[in-house]
Amino acid sequence: MTVTKIEEAGNTTPPEQLLADRGRRPEGSVVDVGGVRIGGREVIVIAGPCAVESREQINETARAVKRSGARMLRGGAFKPRTAPYSFQGLKHEGLQLLSQAKHKTGLPVVTEVMDTREVEAVCEHADVLQIGTRNMQSFELLQEVGRAAKPVLLKRGMSATIKELLYAAEYILKQGNQDVILCERGIRTFETATRNTLDLNAVPMLQRLTHLPVVVDPSHGTGKWWMVPIMAKGAVAVGADGLLVEVHNCPEEALSDGDQSLRPDRFEAMMRDLRGVALAVGREIASATQESLKEVVEAQPAYSNA
Amino acid sequence: MTVTKIEEAGNTTPPEQLLADRGRRPEGSVVDVGGVRIGGREVIVIAGPCAVESREQINETARAVKRSGARMLRGGAFKPRTAPYSFQGLKHEGLQLLSQAKHKTGLPVVTEVMDTREVEAVCEHADVLQIGTRNMQSFELLQEVGRAAKPVLLKRGMSATIKELLYAAEYILKQGNQDVILCERGIRTFETATRNTLDLNAVPMLQRLTHLPVVVDPSHGTGKWWMVPIMAKGAVAVGADGLLVEVHNCPEEALSDGDQSLRPDRFEAMMRDLRGVALAVGREIASATQESLKEVVEAQPAYSNA
Amino acid sequence: MTVTKIEEAGNTTPPEQLLADRGRRPEGSVVDVGGVRIGGREVIVIAGPCAVESREQINETARAVKRSGARMLRGGAFKPRTAPYSFQGLKHEGLQLLSQAKHKTGLPVVTEVMDTREVEAVCEHADVLQIGTRNMQSFELLQEVGRAAKPVLLKRGMSATIKELLYAAEYILKQGNQDVILCERGIRTFETATRNTLDLNAVPMLQRLTHLPVVVDPSHGTGKWWMVPIMAKGAVAVGADGLLVEVHNCPEEALSDGDQSLRPDRFEAMMRDLRGVALAVGREIASATQESLKEVVEAQPAYSNA
Amino acid sequence: MTVTKIEEAGNTTPPEQLLADRGRRPEGSVVDVGGVRIGGREVIVIAGPCAVESREQINETARAVKRSGARMLRGGAFKPRTAPYSFQGLKHEGLQLLSQAKHKTGLPVVTEVMDTREVEAVCEHADVLQIGTRNMQSFELLQEVGRAAKPVLLKRGMSATIKELLYAAEYILKQGNQDVILCERGIRTFETATRNTLDLNAVPMLQRLTHLPVVVDPSHGTGKWWMVPIMAKGAVAVGADGLLVEVHNCPEEALSDGDQSLRPDRFEAMMRDLRGVALAVGREIASATQESLKEVVEAQPAYSNA
Repeated sequence: MTVTKIEEAGNTTPPEQLLADRGRRPEGSVVDVGGVRIGGREVIVIAGPCAVESREQINETARAVKRSGARMLRGGAFKPRTAPYSFQGLKHEGLQLLSQAKHKTGLPVVTEVMDTREVEAVCEHADVLQIGTRNMQSFELLQEVGRAAKPVLLKRGMSATIKELLYAAEYILKQGNQDVILCERGIRTFETATRNTLDLNAVPMLQRLTHLPVVVDPSHGTGKWWMVPIMAKGAVAVGADGLLVEVHNCPEEALSDGDQSLRPDRFEAMMRDLRGVALAVGREIASATQESLKEVVEAQPAYSNA
Repeated sequence: MTVTKIEEAGNTTPPEQLLADRGRRPEGSVVDVGGVRIGGREVIVIAGPCAVESREQINETARAVKRSGARMLRGGAFKPRTAPYSFQGLKHEGLQLLSQAKHKTGLPVVTEVMDTREVEAVCEHADVLQIGTRNMQSFELLQEVGRAAKPVLLKRGMSATIKELLYAAEYILKQGNQDVILCERGIRTFETATRNTLDLNAVPMLQRLTHLPVVVDPSHGTGKWWMVPIMAKGAVAVGADGLLVEVHNCPEEALSDGDQSLRPDRFEAMMRDLRGVALAVGREIASATQESLKEVVEAQPAYSNA
Repeated sequence: MTVTKIEEAGNTTPPEQLLADRGRRPEGSVVDVGGVRIGGREVIVIAGPCAVESREQINETARAVKRSGARMLRGGAFKPRTAPYSFQGLKHEGLQLLSQAKHKTGLPVVTEVMDTREVEAVCEHADVLQIGTRNMQSFELLQEVGRAAKPVLLKRGMSATIKELLYAAEYILKQGNQDVILCERGIRTFETATRNTLDLNAVPMLQRLTHLPVVVDPSHGTGKWWMVPIMAKGAVAVGADGLLVEVHNCPEEALSDGDQSLRPDRFEAMMRDLRGVALAVGREIASATQESLKEVVEAQPAYSNA
Repeated sequence: MTVTKIEEAGNTTPPEQLLADRGRRPEGSVVDVGGVRIGGREVIVIAGPCAVESREQINETARAVKRSGARMLRGGAFKPRTAPYSFQGLKHEGLQLLSQAKHKTGLPVVTEVMDTREVEAVCEHADVLQIGTRNMQSFELLQEVGRAAKPVLLKRGMSATIKELLYAAEYILKQGNQDVILCERGIRTFETATRNTLDLNAVPMLQRLTHLPVVVDPSHGTGKWWMVPIMAKGAVAVGADGLLVEVHNCPEEALSDGDQSLRPDRFEAMMRDLRGVALAVGREIASATQESLKEVVEAQPAYSNA
């Protein structure tokens, strides 16, 4: 094989410094999503259901999280599930429901794309393309979103090292897309008391190594709704640039991940509690007004998760 | 959301017994690849380079492994690499080189497919589609190969549980493709003395749970060429239906995984040593004739890996 | 074997609720160490060198950490080291040096005991007996400190589950010693960018399961001094009752764990930063006065770790 | 602190080559236990119950395993148990029962010591002192058995690296005791389908690094009796110098580890099957005669584990 052939096959000399290297932008990168700036002084909270299940569910949840200070809406249309017999998401219909919720609330939308062939369709509806933990090293998919015109939220593989996460980001950056947000979401360890082990060490370590913003998902990182507000405080305290939180208007009926989804009133309480922690570390966080809080409480008197 | 919508989204009631469940075929499944039967009495050895690098390299290696008793040829055309600056494989040209090597030696070809959009192209040249460890839970890809007319070699994710591996296989089976071969290739643990921890426990456990054949990759499972023949014996002793072994005609010049690739003469020696172990557990294994051994030794006098 | 024999061998019927169970003391336990109360509103900081190395080193470090708000002094006299050729601690001489530092500063002393035969000697000098991560399941040692009249700081085994940690505590409680403090100090995972993975999830999970106070060791939990103040904030934010922090008057000359030891000025800065986080979560923390800060800065102008 | 003080504290310059280093005895060490040679051509099988429970149980099991070819008897008198409410072993009475079983069968005895204060007592009855997985880094205990006149069987910590295991052995060797046998017994990983992940990679890796003999415990390495004979074959195939196997005359009534204990007839069958594998890798193994097999089968017609 000639050198030319290797180059044709996609090889290039690695740069002296990775594109993701902190040294390239010591001040850190800010990813702008329709005016919401991730990587700045404000800690950005992205909230919503694990999966989009119905128009009513996504709209109601979107309104609730917005009232409480969420700046973006999350929700899965394409759902990667361990078993093929589990709910796989509403797919294209789910994308449309997300679009509608976005138009009603003004919240930009983050949703997962699992297949290179769907990147174009997801781009039409999403403001941020999410790469899930199971696809962190699906290199063709990384390159495809690297050629898209939308920011990418890249979740750490559940057993990926920090170095591997940076190289996965590099696949995206190398294609030209500079808007990459990294997400720590818990790693797989021997511990079974929690769904995953939330590796908050990864936040300062990533911020030392790369200029890309880093957000934390305490929902998958714990697997238990009552732990989410506590670990969210930890994430903000160690310097996370944002949070990804599962909220469902009725967790006990959720088609996936109900155990780790917050009810809207608990999400509201979490947002209030986070404000002090954010201030203590020189950051700020959007919070609900008293009115909006009252509205939430009155509107939904019958929450039942204990 | 109505029930109909969930069904449209791809959900179905899970069967009482998974399609992969041993109970459905207590005698075990045999996957036939052009007359090579995986899952029968013979332990099938699949050998070849990590990546196809040139016509000379793949042809020479194919001839060598065939002489020593390999029944199928492996070689990567599309290579999943941690860093985007590493050699990514010869891609479509690599597929053609594999085809040629197959026609010269008669060995069926196993090669990886990483992208749903390439399944068709890979099917044209490959006899078995390999799903790599990083894509074990790329569910769209699993479903796409589940609709293909070629057998699938599904590698265990490097931190996937045995249960998750079975569910990944189920994604393929559910689409209609019944020819799935499972591959234990080492898991990620705290141990760093070896590249991965080869989980040979997985072999009897999988064979108890599923009727699908199980092969073992001692090359990735150890990361060290000198361990490969030893762990290959272990794999045969615990009942593996086959082995996936990296062999390179010149490991020190390999563009990837040279450290874990066997030279042809060492592969030859390994094959001889395996015969006794296979017999001891009631299996058999194809071995080189004395002539072929001599031919290999004489033809390649200058191997240098120590 | 008769039932009597099993009972003689030390077996008893397990209680309906473990002695460590939260249900026994829903308000939580407070462990009092010479007036320092661990488990109350104040977050208690325990600081000092990894190992006691000399009179000057321990005295200087003790004075410095006291000035900055530490409430207890840590320091190893008996050091568990991976290799027998590493510094093993000053042993009995180290205990005496700790006693002297305690008398000079008034700080109660925490130090490790590794051998059942040394429990009595360590009790003479220590205010709290530390059980190290490698001995969390040395059950004879647990029982011996369970019979001692000193509180015990029990570090989580580096690959112990939360459940196993609770059972280890139970061994101590069952012997009559009710003053047990649990310590999360990082677990062993596949990640190598940090020395251990600090499992902050363990803090709220332990506090839900047990009434025993929980402290966090961000020094071992990260292995890097620059991460310690950041992860200390995370620990306080998730509700830790205390911190165990390595501080050395001259980290670059430390005989063990210099990489993860803070210089006194950095420890001082950490203590100041923690105050806001503690307040944000309804806790408080002792802090240095302006004068003491100035004193530290002026006295030690030549710190060199970068 | 002066250099002298460090030396007094037990420090010495590390030798150029560890005492355990293969380079010191390239031919490998043989540990002789009353004429049974571990590390030679014969693969030594050590069998017996997890715990000594009664005179009848240990005698019956000892006779059975001897008939089938076991060369040494294992059995726990002091039992390390996760919970303090579990059976803790018969302790000194258990040691005496082991002695009696030894005198009746001629089998040397391996039993665990957990406390420095019990080393002398255990030495009176045991032929080999076992250090359990939870005490692999109880350095005082290692040093104490390093001063004893009995060989030591050192089990790998359940999350210890190979390097840490070698350093633990070094603690023993450094005290003068050269008769150390290493034991791979499964490591802790994310996989829950098996009790531990038996790391057979460790066998060839250890044998490359050290001259000490290496045995494998497939009982703890799998946690399931039906896997034990299969993984025992794997262990012999990769070159283990011996096996440590739990056998109980009545597993369903065992006070500990019944799930992983073989019935005597299954142990007998295992021994027969191992012979061929041993021969295939140039080793041999003691096997039962036809008569003894018959005797076992006739004597115990009512085994019930399925």
